[in-house]
Amino acid sequence: MEPGTARIAVDLLGGDDAPAVVVDGALRAVRTDPDLHLLLVGPAEAADALIGALDPEQRARVAVRPVRAAVGMADHPTAARAESTVRAAVTAVRDGLADAIVSAGSTGATVTAAALGLGRWAGVRRPALVATLPAVAGPVVLLDVGGTLEPRPTTLARHAVLGAAYAAVAHGVAAPRVGLLSVGTEAGKGDRLRRAADPALATVPLPCGARYVGLVEGFDICDGARADVVVTDGFTGNVLLKAIEGAYAMAGGPPASGGAPRAAALLGVAGTVVVCHGAARPDDVASGIALAAHLWRRGAADTVSALLADLPQDSAPIDTEVAP
Amino acid sequence: MEPGTARIAVDLLGGDDAPAVVVDGALRAVRTDPDLHLLLVGPAEAADALIGALDPEQRARVAVRPVRAAVGMADHPTAARAESTVRAAVTAVRDGLADAIVSAGSTGATVTAAALGLGRWAGVRRPALVATLPAVAGPVVLLDVGGTLEPRPTTLARHAVLGAAYAAVAHGVAAPRVGLLSVGTEAGKGDRLRRAADPALATVPLPCGARYVGLVEGFDICDGARADVVVTDGFTGNVLLKAIEGAYAMAGGPPASGGAPRAAALLGVAGTVVVCHGAARPDDVASGIALAAHLWRRGAADTVSALLADLPQDSAPIDTEVAP
Repeated sequence: MEPGTARIAVDLLGGDDAPAVVVDGALRAVRTDPDLHLLLVGPAEAADALIGALDPEQRARVAVRPVRAAVGMADHPTAARAESTVRAAVTAVRDGLADAIVSAGSTGATVTAAALGLGRWAGVRRPALVATLPAVAGPVVLLDVGGTLEPRPTTLARHAVLGAAYAAVAHGVAAPRVGLLSVGTEAGKGDRLRRAADPALATVPLPCGARYVGLVEGFDICDGARADVVVTDGFTGNVLLKAIEGAYAMAGGPPASGGAPRAAALLGVAGTVVVCHGAARPDDVASGIALAAHLWRRGAADTVSALLADLPQDSAPIDTEVAP
Repeated sequence: MEPGTARIAVDLLGGDDAPAVVVDGALRAVRTDPDLHLLLVGPAEAADALIGALDPEQRARVAVRPVRAAVGMADHPTAARAESTVRAAVTAVRDGLADAIVSAGSTGATVTAAALGLGRWAGVRRPALVATLPAVAGPVVLLDVGGTLEPRPTTLARHAVLGAAYAAVAHGVAAPRVGLLSVGTEAGKGDRLRRAADPALATVPLPCGARYVGLVEGFDICDGARADVVVTDGFTGNVLLKAIEGAYAMAGGPPASGGAPRAAALLGVAGTVVVCHGAARPDDVASGIALAAHLWRRGAADTVSALLADLPQDSAPIDTEVAP
């Protein structure tokens, strides 16, 4: 764990089993990391349960931001109230009250709230959710896992840039190898999106000494021998990540190197945002908070954004798609 | 193993390590199944290596169909020669010399050769590759795993029908539950294809007492608790299947119930066709031959085809897409 204070805004109402699971996860996080400060965003009564269980030192590192809207929205469905808490968490970061956001709520709502509240990076119209899998050969960065379900080829090329920068900055991967996920490794394999994206990825300049290694296959995600960064559309990445999690559960548990991540970083918005699995358990929420703290301490969002801005202008095609 | 003679035409030149691996796999199959007859299609010299290793009883169950083109094509790339062997295997089935085809060659070449040589079922323009995963709760039929990379919503509805019939006929699943793979289970989750296909699957009459259970997620493929048949596009299914295989390898081996299949049945062509993984090992080829024999003995292709023909006419929208 890197040193340095990290102030994380936690959406108490995000996730299938919120707030109980979120509160439990936050409790674990604050006990594990002595430099962690939490801003609990949501109903004060849910936060009180957490705070009452802490010792005085830990309690001093936890603040509450009650969401008034949640009170007036008592008769609204949980999803609507949760959107209001994730918006409040984004506002807290925008106003300098927290350094990063963690939510296990709807990915779409979190992406939209973060993009509107914090703004997007120049040149990135379509944010990407990035998950890191602990492969044998080292971490494999998989993106997108649900931020942009229907990317264009230029978006995949842009995500290749984001993924390469993230692998280097967040995980210290030197000269990341970037692959495009397809149904075979020979050039020309895949659907129209892949056939159009392959030459786009081959020509886009990549940061951090990264290089494009061409098409990779499903095995390569868990294996890591061929690529450090695997680029795919958000639909495929999302179902893949959950299928890998299911396979590990079937096989009696994840490998010693670690299982499928249940928290992902949102890249492309001007801030540190981590999305946890909707079916998050307390440990998943705690690991999401730890990921957010790690990214903040490394200055990952700012560094990745700066790497993008430093790329040659002609290498940074701006997506022309409509924002989500 | 069901009784009954099954005569399988094996493409000796299909697969990354053909013919050695194919010959080895065929050897294992013929030794395991006393009612199995093999027609080895390809270079006679490769077949000879196999035949020489068999005892007289086994040898009597193995025939060779030398592919002349392969001789004249000695200076052609392996892929071109392999296409000629898979076409010859298809011709052998069409001419009544064999009951089923097994190839570990290019999926596209096999699908095309089978569709042209054997014809398609009425109402099925887009064949599907079907893989069966051994989940906790019973077999899960996943389709498509690479036959049709870019289906329309009507194709996914048609594949739901095929998958339901296949689960009942090939695996004896009673009243199969059919799910559509997406990024969440709530209605409306997914990309445009999934949002359009969901109502199409909800209204298409399904055979064998099957019912549509709505959207399912990546976990459900290995788990099997929510659906017996999981419908997706061939791109997603292909990368998923390989990712699950990779996850099992990472976790130290597949679960006791069995790993990811490395052979898939082709549904939609008028014959029994099994496609093995391009990187097939001898055991994979042997399991592909066993699957082909199983499907033939059950009369799976004819039964599934008849189930389709028996569906109400208005329930069998014919895909209007151009054939592959």
